[in-house]
Amino acid sequence: MSLSVQRNQEIERLQKKLGYRFKRVELLHKALTHRSYGAKNNERLEFIGDSILNYTVAKMLFLTFPDMTEGELSRLRANLVNQDTLADIATELNVGDCLFLGVGELKSGGFRRPSILADAMEAMFAAVSFDANFDEAEHVVTLLFQNRIRNIDLRNHGKDAKTLLQEALQARRLPLPKYRIEDQFGEAHEQTFVIVCDLGELGFQCKAQAHSRRLAEQAAAKEALNYVEKKCSFKRP
Amino acid sequence: MSLSVQRNQEIERLQKKLGYRFKRVELLHKALTHRSYGAKNNERLEFIGDSILNYTVAKMLFLTFPDMTEGELSRLRANLVNQDTLADIATELNVGDCLFLGVGELKSGGFRRPSILADAMEAMFAAVSFDANFDEAEHVVTLLFQNRIRNIDLRNHGKDAKTLLQEALQARRLPLPKYRIEDQFGEAHEQTFVIVCDLGELGFQCKAQAHSRRLAEQAAAKEALNYVEKKCSFKRP
Repeated sequence: MSLSVQRNQEIERLQKKLGYRFKRVELLHKALTHRSYGAKNNERLEFIGDSILNYTVAKMLFLTFPDMTEGELSRLRANLVNQDTLADIATELNVGDCLFLGVGELKSGGFRRPSILADAMEAMFAAVSFDANFDEAEHVVTLLFQNRIRNIDLRNHGKDAKTLLQEALQARRLPLPKYRIEDQFGEAHEQTFVIVCDLGELGFQCKAQAHSRRLAEQAAAKEALNYVEKKCSFKRP
Repeated sequence: MSLSVQRNQEIERLQKKLGYRFKRVELLHKALTHRSYGAKNNERLEFIGDSILNYTVAKMLFLTFPDMTEGELSRLRANLVNQDTLADIATELNVGDCLFLGVGELKSGGFRRPSILADAMEAMFAAVSFDANFDEAEHVVTLLFQNRIRNIDLRNHGKDAKTLLQEALQARRLPLPKYRIEDQFGEAHEQTFVIVCDLGELGFQCKAQAHSRRLAEQAAAKEALNYVEKKCSFKRP
C-alpha cells in the first residue's frame, strides 16, 4: 500500500476519532502539513488553533472549578495545554501517520516529533473552526480534554509525576532523577518506549513502558515518587 | 450626585459604547469589580476574557493579512493586545468611572491605573460571553479593535512610535529619550497629560498632550522620531 493511500485511510480514521467530518477536507490536509512539505503549510492555522485551545480549556476549568482563583486556573491550564500533552493526544489519535512531511523530516522521524505533532493538533482546531464554526472547534477540544480535566488530581495542584518527583527529591536535598530510553520497538506508528528512571546515589531504579516517551517517563516517575515518599526522610540543614 | 448613582449612569453609557446591553447586569458589575472591593471580583472572568481577546484579534489579523507568516502575526498581536492598548480603550470608554474599587484603590487613583483598567476590559469580554455567547463577545472585541487593525502601519511592522524612536536612536548610537510629565489637569475621569520627550545631548525637546499618559508619550515620540530621521545621520563605528 502506498504512503498516500495509507495516509488517506488514516485521515479517515482521524476524523472519526475527532468526532468531526470535514466538508472541505483540504482544510484538514493543510492542518496536517508541516512547513518542510511546502509553502502551503499549517503554521498560520496553528496561530489560530492555539488560541481556540487556550480559550476552551480555560472555560472548561472555569466551569469545573468554581472556587479556584485565577492563578490556580492558570497553573492548571499550563499543565494541561503544552507540547507534551498535545503530542500525547496526537499519538492517541495516530496523527503521525496522517502528516504531510518533507522528505528530510520523513526520514528523520518527524512523524513522532512532539513539536510537529502538537502544532498539527492546534492547526486542526483552527481548521475545524474555519470548516464549520468556533463552537464546533470548541466541541472537538472539549471531547479531547474532558477526561484529562476530570482526572486532575487536585491534591497535587495538577502537577505531573515528574514534577512531583523532582520536588520530593529537592525537599529532601537529594540529587535529581535521570531518565533514559532503555528500549524502543514496534512499527513507526505504534512504537513502545521503555524508560528507566534512575535515582542515582539512592541506588533505586525503575522501568516503565508506554506508547510515548513522555507517558513512559511519567509512569516511571510515579513509581520512583512512591519509593521516595516511603523510604527517604527529610534531611534538615 | 452620589458615587453609585454616577457610576450607574456611566455603566449605562458604557453598554451603549460597547454595542452590547447586558441581560444580567450583575455580570457586568462583576467584570468591573476589582479585587480590592471584595471577594466577588473580576479576576476569574479576566482569565477567560484574555483568551477571547487573543483568539479574536488572532482571527482578525489572520483574515486581514493573508500573506503574513505566523511569526509576523504573533508580533502584530503582541503589539495590539497588551496592557497599554487595553488601558487606552478603557480610557476611551470611560471605564474608570464604572469601576467598583476598594477605598484604598479609590483614594490612590486606581480608576486610572492601566493594569486595573486592562483587567476590567478583559473581564467584560468574558462577561459578554457568559451573558450571551462567544460570538457576541467576539463581536464586541471586533468593534473595539477593527480601527486599530485597519490603521496598522505595515512599513513599521506594527511597531509604535516609542519603539521606533528608540530603534532610530540606537541605530545612530545616540542616547535613549527621556519622557516626563510636565502637566496634568482636568477632572479625574477626563484628565489631560502633558508629556515632554527629551533627546538629551541632541538638545531637542518636544511636547504633546492627550487624555492618557501613554497616548501623550506616543504623540511626543512621533514628533521626536520625525526630528531624528531628518536631522541625525548614522554614525559608523
